[in-house]
Amino acid sequence: MRYDVADLSLASEGKKRILWADNDMPVLAAIRKRFAKSRPLAGKNVSACLHITAETANLARTLKASGANVVLCASNPLSTQDNVSASLVKDFKIPVFAICGENRSTYYKHINAAIDHKPVITFDDGADLVNELHTHRKKEGHRIIASMEETTTGVIRLRAMANASLLKFPVIAVNDADTKHLFDNRYGTGQSTVDGIIRATDFLMAGKKVVAAGYGWCGRGFAMRARGMGAIVVITEVDAIKALEAAMDGFEVMPMAQAAKEGELFVTLTGNKNVIRAEHFRVMKDRAVVANSGHFNIEIDIPALKKMSKKVNRNVRNHVDEYILKNNKRICLLAEGRLINLAAAEGHPACVMDMSFATQALEAEYVIKNKDKLAVAVHDVPIEIEQKVSKLKLKSMSIKIDQLTAEQIAYLGSSGEGT
Amino acid sequence: MRYDVADLSLASEGKKRILWADNDMPVLAAIRKRFAKSRPLAGKNVSACLHITAETANLARTLKASGANVVLCASNPLSTQDNVSASLVKDFKIPVFAICGENRSTYYKHINAAIDHKPVITFDDGADLVNELHTHRKKEGHRIIASMEETTTGVIRLRAMANASLLKFPVIAVNDADTKHLFDNRYGTGQSTVDGIIRATDFLMAGKKVVAAGYGWCGRGFAMRARGMGAIVVITEVDAIKALEAAMDGFEVMPMAQAAKEGELFVTLTGNKNVIRAEHFRVMKDRAVVANSGHFNIEIDIPALKKMSKKVNRNVRNHVDEYILKNNKRICLLAEGRLINLAAAEGHPACVMDMSFATQALEAEYVIKNKDKLAVAVHDVPIEIEQKVSKLKLKSMSIKIDQLTAEQIAYLGSSGEGT
Amino acid sequence: MRYDVADLSLASEGKKRILWADNDMPVLAAIRKRFAKSRPLAGKNVSACLHITAETANLARTLKASGANVVLCASNPLSTQDNVSASLVKDFKIPVFAICGENRSTYYKHINAAIDHKPVITFDDGADLVNELHTHRKKEGHRIIASMEETTTGVIRLRAMANASLLKFPVIAVNDADTKHLFDNRYGTGQSTVDGIIRATDFLMAGKKVVAAGYGWCGRGFAMRARGMGAIVVITEVDAIKALEAAMDGFEVMPMAQAAKEGELFVTLTGNKNVIRAEHFRVMKDRAVVANSGHFNIEIDIPALKKMSKKVNRNVRNHVDEYILKNNKRICLLAEGRLINLAAAEGHPACVMDMSFATQALEAEYVIKNKDKLAVAVHDVPIEIEQKVSKLKLKSMSIKIDQLTAEQIAYLGSSGEGT
Amino acid sequence: MRYDVADLSLASEGKKRILWADNDMPVLAAIRKRFAKSRPLAGKNVSACLHITAETANLARTLKASGANVVLCASNPLSTQDNVSASLVKDFKIPVFAICGENRSTYYKHINAAIDHKPVITFDDGADLVNELHTHRKKEGHRIIASMEETTTGVIRLRAMANASLLKFPVIAVNDADTKHLFDNRYGTGQSTVDGIIRATDFLMAGKKVVAAGYGWCGRGFAMRARGMGAIVVITEVDAIKALEAAMDGFEVMPMAQAAKEGELFVTLTGNKNVIRAEHFRVMKDRAVVANSGHFNIEIDIPALKKMSKKVNRNVRNHVDEYILKNNKRICLLAEGRLINLAAAEGHPACVMDMSFATQALEAEYVIKNKDKLAVAVHDVPIEIEQKVSKLKLKSMSIKIDQLTAEQIAYLGSSGEGT
Repeated sequence: MRYDVADLSLASEGKKRILWADNDMPVLAAIRKRFAKSRPLAGKNVSACLHITAETANLARTLKASGANVVLCASNPLSTQDNVSASLVKDFKIPVFAICGENRSTYYKHINAAIDHKPVITFDDGADLVNELHTHRKKEGHRIIASMEETTTGVIRLRAMANASLLKFPVIAVNDADTKHLFDNRYGTGQSTVDGIIRATDFLMAGKKVVAAGYGWCGRGFAMRARGMGAIVVITEVDAIKALEAAMDGFEVMPMAQAAKEGELFVTLTGNKNVIRAEHFRVMKDRAVVANSGHFNIEIDIPALKKMSKKVNRNVRNHVDEYILKNNKRICLLAEGRLINLAAAEGHPACVMDMSFATQALEAEYVIKNKDKLAVAVHDVPIEIEQKVSKLKLKSMSIKIDQLTAEQIAYLGSSGEGT
Repeated sequence: MRYDVADLSLASEGKKRILWADNDMPVLAAIRKRFAKSRPLAGKNVSACLHITAETANLARTLKASGANVVLCASNPLSTQDNVSASLVKDFKIPVFAICGENRSTYYKHINAAIDHKPVITFDDGADLVNELHTHRKKEGHRIIASMEETTTGVIRLRAMANASLLKFPVIAVNDADTKHLFDNRYGTGQSTVDGIIRATDFLMAGKKVVAAGYGWCGRGFAMRARGMGAIVVITEVDAIKALEAAMDGFEVMPMAQAAKEGELFVTLTGNKNVIRAEHFRVMKDRAVVANSGHFNIEIDIPALKKMSKKVNRNVRNHVDEYILKNNKRICLLAEGRLINLAAAEGHPACVMDMSFATQALEAEYVIKNKDKLAVAVHDVPIEIEQKVSKLKLKSMSIKIDQLTAEQIAYLGSSGEGT
Repeated sequence: MRYDVADLSLASEGKKRILWADNDMPVLAAIRKRFAKSRPLAGKNVSACLHITAETANLARTLKASGANVVLCASNPLSTQDNVSASLVKDFKIPVFAICGENRSTYYKHINAAIDHKPVITFDDGADLVNELHTHRKKEGHRIIASMEETTTGVIRLRAMANASLLKFPVIAVNDADTKHLFDNRYGTGQSTVDGIIRATDFLMAGKKVVAAGYGWCGRGFAMRARGMGAIVVITEVDAIKALEAAMDGFEVMPMAQAAKEGELFVTLTGNKNVIRAEHFRVMKDRAVVANSGHFNIEIDIPALKKMSKKVNRNVRNHVDEYILKNNKRICLLAEGRLINLAAAEGHPACVMDMSFATQALEAEYVIKNKDKLAVAVHDVPIEIEQKVSKLKLKSMSIKIDQLTAEQIAYLGSSGEGT
Repeated sequence: MRYDVADLSLASEGKKRILWADNDMPVLAAIRKRFAKSRPLAGKNVSACLHITAETANLARTLKASGANVVLCASNPLSTQDNVSASLVKDFKIPVFAICGENRSTYYKHINAAIDHKPVITFDDGADLVNELHTHRKKEGHRIIASMEETTTGVIRLRAMANASLLKFPVIAVNDADTKHLFDNRYGTGQSTVDGIIRATDFLMAGKKVVAAGYGWCGRGFAMRARGMGAIVVITEVDAIKALEAAMDGFEVMPMAQAAKEGELFVTLTGNKNVIRAEHFRVMKDRAVVANSGHFNIEIDIPALKKMSKKVNRNVRNHVDEYILKNNKRICLLAEGRLINLAAAEGHPACVMDMSFATQALEAEYVIKNKDKLAVAVHDVPIEIEQKVSKLKLKSMSIKIDQLTAEQIAYLGSSGEGT
């Protein structure tokens, strides 16, 4: 078995972590149990380019239980939990290519190892693997039945490819499923971003002026939780409707040029690039803290920050680099602009990843069953899968809900009854 | 000029109300100003079946300014503001057929008066007018270029008609525009429902156990605001995903059968019928209060409540009827199950109706321009109208937002840039 | 029977209101039931200068049931509910001297009528009656066993008198009881101030920039509820600790000079005078709305506002006067600067007044029993009364709480057990 | 120099931590700067029994700067940050006796080392040091000018001693200062308890049913923040007024016997003992999580839990022990029932400790100045110190507030101005 992980001796810590997370992933566990009998992916090669966390480990176990030959590689150089990857290799016999802190070249070497596995289904978190299959490894694409995409960022890239007629095989916008983005992006990113920032800085959030760039699902999750911890939250947006929602949700809304002067903590959650730029750093307060919770480390213009700085004090606290600008003000950059919730905390809690990964697992079963019907396009997750996942989740939480009565179903389908 | 209103002598109070509301409707005012020059509806007959409120008066003024011949009738027997209708007739020379508290027969007589006007565009709030044009007044339908629908309830009815191939002319789901339901249904219904309940009951909301049936946009608006006033909010739902959202928003979620036992105040916001039924009344606490904020007064099964009661004390407080059940428990029904926010308070604040009605006004201009292209179907509001409305609204609130840089636009359209 | 009320024919409406409120005042009702048997105030003359509302009516009924001869007068010219006073006279045979909208001279004439009653116990809401007994009616003071004070403002006045050795008889700072100010001032003022403002203006609170002057119990109640309705709340304070609390509760804190430029709605809740002054009006935005929810109408400098204005449009909407400044900006003053929650809404909900007035009633019993022990000073309510009220309230809400175990009681009284 | 720390080689990490915290403690830093000149404690021996954290290190540095000879020992066996103690010894030459995870015997050996230092002022966090000075080391008490107490728990012990006439020297209830408990207990404990629980469990708080035992300042801080993260919070209380406040703040209130059946996560913040007992464990759900954020590890009856369990899986995740009850249900106990915010996270953020420790530092200066006037009693911190601290804190946050005008000061001191 080929693999590349940091240190196999960490496996026992990793196994504890995987099993602990599994306790909070009852939907995925139920699917795993069923898959172990029905074996829907028997003999299929599958490669997953995902954050290598305890939750991902439980997805990988589920895919393995379904009969697939699974290989994992990292979707981000800083998010790998080395003890989890060790346990996956040692305890669960699932090959992993991922080392926390790996450089760009190793990162892509690992993605290529996952491609060498000759997968028929791929999983992506940011579309790096799919992109490789459309550029340097074009020849391997023909084999792909479908590829799943987990992030807003990745779906944006894939739609751009589809619009430009570059897409070579069907992709599934798992991110766009309600069971994914309404929960994972909102409650998951919301909590874990606050968590990552507190671990990195030990800041009191109460009374802190926090600027959230972006009021999409991630942004509103973070804004809601930062406010829940007592912060005064300011929103920047480029979309007028989202900006109005933010305003009527009680947040101050202003352009970044203004927010940059007022904020004490800045977090980007946009899926876009260079959202915080030189012109913004220049007017920030001394000791402003800047972090990113979007997928890629390009939301903050770090090269510009470096160029503006006369000195950088690395690691003044774990995950904190202090940039001294020429005007002598200090800017604290967290986790080198990488996803703060994965770099400084543990990423999304297992409870929400349960829904996202249950959707992924059921979708994998679906694409195998429907492989001949899938056009080369960006597909949504079928509503039936969403319903199955959400009902299983409610059940696992012991929440019962109402059923429509026959009379109500008839009413909703009719038009005659009025005032 | 034909019209039917309660009392013309109320006009001066109504005019004050209309002008006061106009202050909070700057987007509609800006459109009115432009329409007065471009006259996009010059000479067109238009009939609007809407809640006759100060905000609707400002929409009517805008349509009139655009050159249309406007007639108004009520979309609900209890929601008419009699002083507003008086002023519309007297001060603004706009015919109105609507009297607060009118009975069913007068209600329909008024709708028919609006049809007699031979409109080419109609506006609806609950689809009663459109339904009349598909049943008793079928022959009048041929003239209609398009009809606008303002509510979730109405859109459900229209889609049912379209699905059954019964629809006779194009309809516009104005309700489904983001500039409408994200604001009007959420912040408007949220605040005004709390407002109506407090006016009707003088209850302290703090510590009150409140059951909201439905976690759609209206439901979540009300839940958010009831919590904001200190209530403990319980949600009932029939949709698993909405139920999960409610749970993760920190609300208790349970079936109505259970909630009926625990609640002190019940509010329906579902768009469905008989959501609170005999089986629920039977187990409620003494002095439970029941109200509706959905479109029609069928969400609460009032006939069943009457049948179960040995006595009804009408009007123990304005808008409160006390039903004494055979088990001696008292159920207080507010506003006869009619929209509590319109019956006991003033409906949605002008500030949100500004967006809804600006969308309506621009859509009216749009359908005239595009009348030859509109298929007989349920149409969405074009994104350009939504953008125009939201940008005007931001401007009126003196909120500036960011613009995408050229680099960012390029990035969003590309797929190549990854880790 | 002497009395002076607006219109006895309003009595039936008033009675409905009193009985409805009584439903939400179970603690006071329980005390009334006991008093009707034990008659602790039998034959005593009692005068109460309070807001004449449905809740006060139920206090008056309780005092009457205890055997007292009760007379009521208003504690504010604008807060009298005329139908309640009619019912008190007609249905409950309790003399009332109070007319909504009475002028200053009638107001004081009414207070003097209450003094003419030769009370041995007085109740005050703002200390106007006690003040009269220390100035123009000095000779009547000798008879007073004790006077109860219901407000922060009144307690400040009384302590000033005590500090200056001017106090002539014992007074009870009922306001300072936890069962009073923690609930009435916070949850009562909080909700009813929002309620009064919405009724007066029909404003959407969501997204509105609201400036609350004062972060005492009333101020924080209002700030909490305004935020709960979606407003962005700014706090002004003179006390550094309260200002820090406000900041860490997530509110912006700034001086009024700055807030005046930014706010859209201003509410004073300070117990002080001229908190909003000419220098503030001058820099406000066009259509800024200004209201007071503190006891007296001196928190806003209305004389200055008048002087600055070239024109006043009275009653542009009920409870709204529009002042046109010389710079053409419009300032909307609500309810002539009187308590907005009583002038435009119904004051504190019965549910909280239940606690305040239960404390008042038990305190009246207490001072009669202890009349010989009471020094001429400002007294706190004894802890036993607070415990009785709070336990009865919990019971009426069907809330059970834990009891200390014997082991826990011992532990709390010991010092030995450490790490 | 005598000391006992875990590992001096950790000093550089500790120093980083201390300096990082210092950035968020501007009030203490300003005092340190002044003390370095005025040297108010020159030559005094001082012993502090506190949590050995980065924040405490900055207090120790301040005391040292004031001229004192400072020795530190731990106030809790699990809360010592070993790298901070290493840096204090190595970099700041301040003797520390504290090792994270030390047993009870070492813990008391360390306290005795601090007493051997012959202090004239002592600092306590839970009253263990003072208790030792009243029991085993009675003879050393004569020297003490005053001792400061930082916690609610400690103040309860000290008042019990004073009530029993056992107290031997003056003590200062620093905890009772507004600048301490309103901030540190509420915002500090609130945030750090949520932080500790998330780090220990990686739980999603959204939708979790969380039971908080106690609605004192710590309890309400935690309840507020847990709700802010989306949890459904249930409060248990023994005090009727606090229970009513919790109810009107929108929390469910119930006895622990009931809450034990419903909760998923339990946190004790009471200052009492055995708040969660065998009868409660017995009815809990499978995988219930139990944690303590009160001072001592006696709030949860861990001996009873052990006795009820057939097996204990230690450390199934860091800081988590899983107890398997005889009914096969699993109870997860966090951090062995020690303060979860210090054991699993970093304790209170520096920003709030700044206020608490600034109060401590100024109080130390004060007791030296006033040593002859201090009775043997439990003293409050003088209001002047509170004002100084709160004003410095506001200044450090760049928050400006209003000043009373001369007219307002006169008004507050007068009684004559009424309606």
